[in-house]
Amino acid sequence: MQEEKEISQAVVRRMPRYYRHLGELLEAGVERISSNDLSRRMNVTASQIRQDLNNFGGFGQQGYGYNVKYLHEEIGKVLGLNRRHNIIVIGAGNLGQALANYVKFEKHGFMITGLFDVKPELKGMLVRGIRIYMLDELEAFCAENQVDIAALTMPKEKADAIANRLVDLGIPAIWNFAHVDLELFDKNVVVENVHLSDSLMQLSYNIVKNQKK
Amino acid sequence: MQEEKEISQAVVRRMPRYYRHLGELLEAGVERISSNDLSRRMNVTASQIRQDLNNFGGFGQQGYGYNVKYLHEEIGKVLGLNRRHNIIVIGAGNLGQALANYVKFEKHGFMITGLFDVKPELKGMLVRGIRIYMLDELEAFCAENQVDIAALTMPKEKADAIANRLVDLGIPAIWNFAHVDLELFDKNVVVENVHLSDSLMQLSYNIVKNQKK
Repeated sequence: MQEEKEISQAVVRRMPRYYRHLGELLEAGVERISSNDLSRRMNVTASQIRQDLNNFGGFGQQGYGYNVKYLHEEIGKVLGLNRRHNIIVIGAGNLGQALANYVKFEKHGFMITGLFDVKPELKGMLVRGIRIYMLDELEAFCAENQVDIAALTMPKEKADAIANRLVDLGIPAIWNFAHVDLELFDKNVVVENVHLSDSLMQLSYNIVKNQKK
Repeated sequence: MQEEKEISQAVVRRMPRYYRHLGELLEAGVERISSNDLSRRMNVTASQIRQDLNNFGGFGQQGYGYNVKYLHEEIGKVLGLNRRHNIIVIGAGNLGQALANYVKFEKHGFMITGLFDVKPELKGMLVRGIRIYMLDELEAFCAENQVDIAALTMPKEKADAIANRLVDLGIPAIWNFAHVDLELFDKNVVVENVHLSDSLMQLSYNIVKNQKK
């Protein structure tokens, strides 16, 4: 692989989709695929695929197509999936517990190691073997366990304060489900937002637009 | 409002964020805001804001700023939030139940009216008052109830077949949480994907990139 350049987030956003399609091809026993066939499957142009992959050094031989297993592995490395990521979930309500129950994240090295909440009745409960701690145990937990990602699934009113407390504890990345743009004092912290309401609103915009046709 | 042009999905994707920030301003009692102040708050350029809003007719007066309540309402109309959207959730597992428990969607007119699953032990159970039906009751339910959006939270292996069954029933929009790109026979159906694993992978890419700095 070449030395890495600064790669646009638009390209980064497309990489998990390549990884997913290559994983499906691998499961189906496909060993090699041309950029044209991959293009048809993914419904993007072959030139887009070549451009995207060239950001990371190419991975293919002209006229010979891509080796599916190799490309899948290399994109996995680009995405940091060749290492373990420990996740804690702040907020052990329905969404937090839903995340803890998602076994598929583990296949890609994302391990949820603890849930945190403020409701005393949840203390010590297990969700698929993962313990629920009280929020005041957060500092002690982080002193003893490496945490790579904190998922925020609590109400938006508390999100900023808790996010900055997590940043203070040295947690390098936040997966934010709270319906707010976080204001962090440390701009180096990686934030990825999942705003479910925004996604629903985009859907309803397109429903209305379709009905006008 | 002007006659609507074809507006790019990139613009559409930004509109819920405007709506959210304007809602926060409204709650804080702010009546009027300049594009410069909105720009600082949202961390986008003022010219971007003016361009985005001009797609829908502008909503502002030069040098006078935006009326927060009016702009919030108008963007709400653009996003189709001035009408009710009935949602059914296919898959009453953790994620499906988490969605059913999310009261905040209702504030914007998104009402979950039923959950569907194949596990007999779930039949007739209520989640926050919302009934779980068996999947073979889907056709009867849709004959009696208007359904605007179907959320798919079942395993990816079954997603394509069920999505096409929903399309057959005339449901105009799919909110897809299954980890697959749906292949629908009717290309007019609106699909919005929430791929949680993709979002985690983007996060881990940025963690790795940050550590190389």
